[in-house]
Formats: sequence, C-alpha cells, structure tokens
Amino acid sequence: MEQPVINIGIMGVGNIGTGVARILLTERELLASRSGIRFNLKTVVDTDWERDRGVDFTGVKMGTDAAEIINDPGIDIVIETIGGYEPAFTYVMQALANGKHVITANKALLATRGRELFSQARAHGVDILFEASVGGGIPVIMGLREGLVANRILGIYGIVNGTSNYILSRMHQDNMDFAEALREAQAKGFAEADPTLDINGVDAAHKLAILASLAFGGLVNFDRIPVEGITGVTPLDINYAKSFGYVIKLLAICRFIGGKADLRVHPTLVPEEHLLAAVNNELNAVFITGDLVGNTMFYGPGAGQDPTASAVVSDIVDLARNMLARPRGECFSCLSMDPEKDVPLLPLDEVTNRFYLRLYTLDQPGILARISGVLGENKISISSVVQLETHGEKDFVPIVLLTHEAPEHALNKALMQLREFAFIRPDILRLRLFHA
Amino acid sequence: MEQPVINIGIMGVGNIGTGVARILLTERELLASRSGIRFNLKTVVDTDWERDRGVDFTGVKMGTDAAEIINDPGIDIVIETIGGYEPAFTYVMQALANGKHVITANKALLATRGRELFSQARAHGVDILFEASVGGGIPVIMGLREGLVANRILGIYGIVNGTSNYILSRMHQDNMDFAEALREAQAKGFAEADPTLDINGVDAAHKLAILASLAFGGLVNFDRIPVEGITGVTPLDINYAKSFGYVIKLLAICRFIGGKADLRVHPTLVPEEHLLAAVNNELNAVFITGDLVGNTMFYGPGAGQDPTASAVVSDIVDLARNMLARPRGECFSCLSMDPEKDVPLLPLDEVTNRFYLRLYTLDQPGILARISGVLGENKISISSVVQLETHGEKDFVPIVLLTHEAPEHALNKALMQLREFAFIRPDILRLRLFHA
Repeated sequence: MEQPVINIGIMGVGNIGTGVARILLTERELLASRSGIRFNLKTVVDTDWERDRGVDFTGVKMGTDAAEIINDPGIDIVIETIGGYEPAFTYVMQALANGKHVITANKALLATRGRELFSQARAHGVDILFEASVGGGIPVIMGLREGLVANRILGIYGIVNGTSNYILSRMHQDNMDFAEALREAQAKGFAEADPTLDINGVDAAHKLAILASLAFGGLVNFDRIPVEGITGVTPLDINYAKSFGYVIKLLAICRFIGGKADLRVHPTLVPEEHLLAAVNNELNAVFITGDLVGNTMFYGPGAGQDPTASAVVSDIVDLARNMLARPRGECFSCLSMDPEKDVPLLPLDEVTNRFYLRLYTLDQPGILARISGVLGENKISISSVVQLETHGEKDFVPIVLLTHEAPEHALNKALMQLREFAFIRPDILRLRLFHA
Repeated sequence: MEQPVINIGIMGVGNIGTGVARILLTERELLASRSGIRFNLKTVVDTDWERDRGVDFTGVKMGTDAAEIINDPGIDIVIETIGGYEPAFTYVMQALANGKHVITANKALLATRGRELFSQARAHGVDILFEASVGGGIPVIMGLREGLVANRILGIYGIVNGTSNYILSRMHQDNMDFAEALREAQAKGFAEADPTLDINGVDAAHKLAILASLAFGGLVNFDRIPVEGITGVTPLDINYAKSFGYVIKLLAICRFIGGKADLRVHPTLVPEEHLLAAVNNELNAVFITGDLVGNTMFYGPGAGQDPTASAVVSDIVDLARNMLARPRGECFSCLSMDPEKDVPLLPLDEVTNRFYLRLYTLDQPGILARISGVLGENKISISSVVQLETHGEKDFVPIVLLTHEAPEHALNKALMQLREFAFIRPDILRLRLFHA
C-alpha cells in the first residue's frame, strides 16, 4: 500500500533538535513500519553549523534562516527546538500563520503565551503538539489527553523538575546539604549552570500550567499560580520529615474543587509509603486521579536528549495521523487547550492544608505554650511536635510541628503573629503535607 | 463545525459492558468536546435483560441476538465485552468480516487467537483495539505503541495480575499465609471464586503475550511462554526474601536479546528500592525500558468496572480518529500486531538468571557442603546463604540461598541432582531475581 509522506523542518538543532534529527534519519524504516507513514526530514535550521553534531545530514537542507522552513510550502510539520521566548515565539506564530503544524518542547512558551499560540493555531486550522514539554520522555500528555479522555480529572501531583528532585533525593538519602547536592547535580549534568528556574519552582509551574490546562480543557493564567521553590529546605527539615514518616518532594499540584482549580508548586511532605515518595534522583513522575480510573502514575526520565527526542517523535507520528484524519484543517489540540476558555482558579487562601512548621526559638521556658496558644487562637490544632532536649544553648534551637487540616488564611495569620515574638527567629519555614 | 458521528454496538452488557454504556450515555458532551466527534450508542445486546444495571438505556436498541449488531450496516464500532473464548471469538470474526471495527478487553482471546483475529481485520480493512486488555485503566498499550513509537523496546516488566499482587502484598506486609491472603482477596472482590488463572500465572501470560507482540510488532505463540504461578510461595520465602532486601512479585517479563524475546511469567525477587517493589495490593504497573527513553513505568488499577470502561472508551475515541484518518480502510493495529510476523522466542534454557533456592534438609552435619558441591560442579556460585541455628529438630529444616548469575540449564541440572539426595525434601523452591 502506498504510504503518505510527511515533510518536516527542525528550527534549532541543539541538544534536543539533534536528537530528533538523528531518530528521523536513522529510524526511517522503523517509524514507517509502525505508523504506515513516511517521515522525511527536509530542512534543518540553526545559526551555528561549525559544531559537529555527530549526525549525517546527507540529503537534508541545512540552513541558517528560519524562513527557509517557515516559508517553505513543502513543509508540513515544523519542530521548534530553539527554546526560550524569542525568537521562538515569533517563528512559531509565523509557521502557524503559514498553515504549518508545530511541535514544541518549550514549556515556558506554552505556559506563558499559550493563549496566543492556540488562538493562532485555531485560526489557521493547524495543530500544536507538545508531549516533550512535561515529563520529558514520559508519554503523560498523551496519557492525560487520550488515555484518560473519558475521565473528569480530580487531581494531578507531579514531580516534574529533575533538578529539584535530584537535590532533595540526595539530601534525603545521603544527608547532604542543599549546596553540596546542587553542586553534585551540576557535575552530573542534572542541573544547569544557572539553576534558578529549577530550584525556585518556576519550571515546575510552567509544566503545571500545561497539565492543568489539558485537564480542564482551557488555559491557565500562569502568573496566578502560587510557587515556592526548594531553597529554604535544610537537612534538618529533611530529617524531621523523615522521622515523621515523610519524604520531601517538590510537587506541582492541581486539584479541582467545586469547578475551580487549586494550583500550586511547593515542597511537600509525601508519606513514605506513597508511590511518589519512591520517585528518586533526576526522575519524574505524574500521579493523576480520574473519576473513573482512580489513581494512575506515569514515571520516567524528565529530561535528556534521547528521552525528550523520543517524545517529540511520538508527537510527529500522532500529528501525522491527525493530519490525515482532518485534511480540511482543524486544531485538534485546541479541543483540550481551548484558548477561549479560562481555567478558573481557587485562591490559595481558600484552600485547607496540613502544615509542617519549623521555628527557631530561644531556649526559654513556656515558649511552646506561647506558640501553641497562637495556633489555637487561629483554630489550628497541632498533631505532632518535636522539641529535642537542648543543653543550655544560648542560641536559637529548633521546634518542629505538624498541624491538622487548617485553612491557609488561618495559618498565614498565625505566622504573622508568631513572627512578632522576639524569641522566635523570623525565618519560620512552612511546608505542606500531601493530601489527595 | 459539524461533528462526525460514530455509531456503536456493545455485545455483552455485564460488568465492563455496563460501565462502557454508562460513560457513553452520560458523558456524551464531554467526549464530543474533547474529541470533536459524537459517539452514539445504538445497540446493546445481552442474553439477560432481567437484571437492573442501573443505566437508563432510553434511545438505545436492546437486543438479545449479537446479529443485531454484527449485521447492522449502521454500526461502525463493535465492543466485545462478553469475555471468554466462545461465542466471543465467532462474533468478533463475523463483525470484522462485516467491515466493523472491534474493541475488546478480552486478553485470553487476543493472546491465543490473535493471529486469526488480526488476519481477519487486515483482510477486511478494519481495526482491533484493546487498551483494556492489559493493565485495566492504565493507558499502557497506547503508551507502548504510540508514546514510545520511536523506541526499540529492550525490556518489559509487568505486575499485571491484581489478584496475585494482592495476595503477595498481604503476605509481605502482614505475614499472612497464602490461603488467608487469597480468602481476603476474594472477600474484597480482588479475586474470583475460581482464582486458578490468576494464581497460576496464565492471566499474566495472556497480557505478556499482548505486550511482547506490540513491542516486537508481530505475534507471540502463547503456548510457548514459560509460566509459573505464586502457589509455591510460602511466608517463609517472603520473609527470607525480605531479609535479603527483596520483595516477591509475580512479574510478566519480556526482554529482547539478540533479536529474540525472552518471555516468562514467574514470582520474582525485586530489590526493595526498585519502583516495582512499591506497587502494592491489587494495583498493576508495567515498567518499560526503551533504547531512547530509558526506564518508564505506567501504574494504576488493573481491573474494575470504571477503570476498565475508561480504557475501552479511550479506544473508542482513538479508533474514531483512525477511521477518519483512513476512510479507505486499513488495519492500523495490524502494523504493531502483524499477523504474518512471529515473535522469535529465546528458549528459557538459554537465559541466565540469579536464583533463590529454598530447600528443606535433614539437620545433619555436612549438608551445606554437599549442596554447594553440587552447585559448584555446575558452575553456579552462591552469593548468600542462610541456615538458621536449629534446636535438635528431627524433621526437615530450611536452607535458603541466593546464587550469582547462572544459566537456567545449569540450574535445572543442579536441581535434578539435589533432588536425588535423601536428606533433601523434593519440594525445592526455585525463584528468580529481577534483572534488567
């Protein structure tokens, strides 16, 4: 039977783009036999062709100007592996305007400019796929959108930043401090030279915005997601959490409550018997609860050339099927990322949580009574408290406590009151406990 | 935009069929908004309409004869939720011959009659989808076939039988014996009244045949898969394994070595730090290693009305997209389940493994030397051995040992020799250790 041919252009032949090109060039036959479609890498564009990428580009047009792809009527699918905001955004908007389908791994772009991108795609009857934007090689976007298509999504709990997970894992398993674990992550290639967006939670929030959008079928206003990173977590917290039976993980959380989305990224105490607690080092996992399926989890590598390229190529095959299904042009992905629908957010203040509080106080009598008094006034009850015996330290000593469920606004008020006490150091750490 | 309409018939409105009908009838709008396609449940057929299924079938034709679906030219997709071999097989073959696409959760049928089914589908240009046949609600078939489409699959390690996993979990966590754990599984609805196919490994082997077929792109000769169930595992084995740092799980294993498939189902000692060791109770998980993606895992409920129906409905949506993509008729699933391709099997004898051996011996001096002598003659070296001090028992006492890697044929020979010793009871238990 004659196989349809799909022509592809790659903009940005860096780490991921090179991986995609290599698969398309070396696995032509495998992909054709599995999909019934032939994929032809027609053009690759990058500003630098000095560097040897270890790929034989024979038969592929190698250009330096994105217009060679964007304006080529012979190209069906454009792969954006430039990264960052510009010029990636402009190029993608132009490609969509020219009737080309786009595949991207660019979570920052999708999370912050999604509305413009999907509006443009819908207006021009083309598609945007983005499997590699969350969870690297894990087919979690497909799992959520297609595998769980019959489900109303109740909750998503993602370990979606490999750098943070690596650091927290090393702190937990080997008693490292944050700086030491970060240096090791950098040495092993699991953290960038500038790890800011990884350790401050923003990268995880980008991915959360994408997952929550898919789960709801609209778009999230990224700027309104509350985000806390892992920089405040110390070995002392890791060890106290461990003694209570918890592992600290940076979670991207999406829960739907009364039609609104409770979205947030923060370090979370996960019970050690929960499957998410067993997801270690640089690996990622997304735990999804659906009304029909119950609890599922998708696990795997969240980054790296080959895993990420594997996800991009799965998008290519999927998109090619859509193209053959809708030759008249329709934005299939706009059905689940509707640019005209806002995901309504539940303000964090209205959410209830269980909390972990770590305070440094002067070693004086009656202090625990004062602290529990403040919490009690705010109707927050304590479930566990640990204040180890000290030996006449003149300096501040730690008190750690876990609360029962309490509203965020009540805890915020209590924290303000606690910070006014001269015997409490102002650097109180507040973490949250996992709840489904 | 006008939405295409797909007409559906369900043969067999039992537990799963009822779940599928309920979703199609109550989530029409959700499915249409997510897929751009309208799904119309036209006909349901069952032999018994006395029983109240808690579903309002208004507007749906309710019949007692499968021909009302099979011979209705207005029906596009036939869902087979009858189960078992006959009449399910005959009905599916007829439906395919009449140009209807088929969705089934019937792993026994797929594993044993796959060649006839997919040949029929190919001959008539229609498709067979079967997401619910492995891992219940977990989208692992889609993940393997589409999400990992760019990967050569290196290994699959599945906990795919909920009954066995429940029993082993209870034995591990609560020191129950097999019979007690089985009774509890039956009481909680995680085991059938007749659990034979679950505890003897055959159900897991059915699922393994499907996964291995997809991974290779051909069909597995089911009868040639070596299968061991969990009935020989005792609390003593669970506890010895635990003391060595392992959890015993019934694994369905597929490894590709030199172009051949090493397929088997057996209880396996999984290191307690491996993610599969954390998959407990009735839950399922499939751990898949691809050449590009590395290690991934798909986790969730392996059975139950709603999870299984969720998977069937994801097939309906997926299939509808294929139908629109290939209006001229093509068996898309035949690309990955090619009925003309055999999956070449590696005989178990040629595989090497690490082994757990549990022997009951008389409490006499020199016995360990005799046992290690036999193993040594067969070039099998021991990595750990435990023989607890006994207190003059006249009866047999256990010796447990772990070996290093050794060929299966060498171990079989050693076992034969050991069984000849009068001081060893013939019921030697041989388990295998997990290796990637």
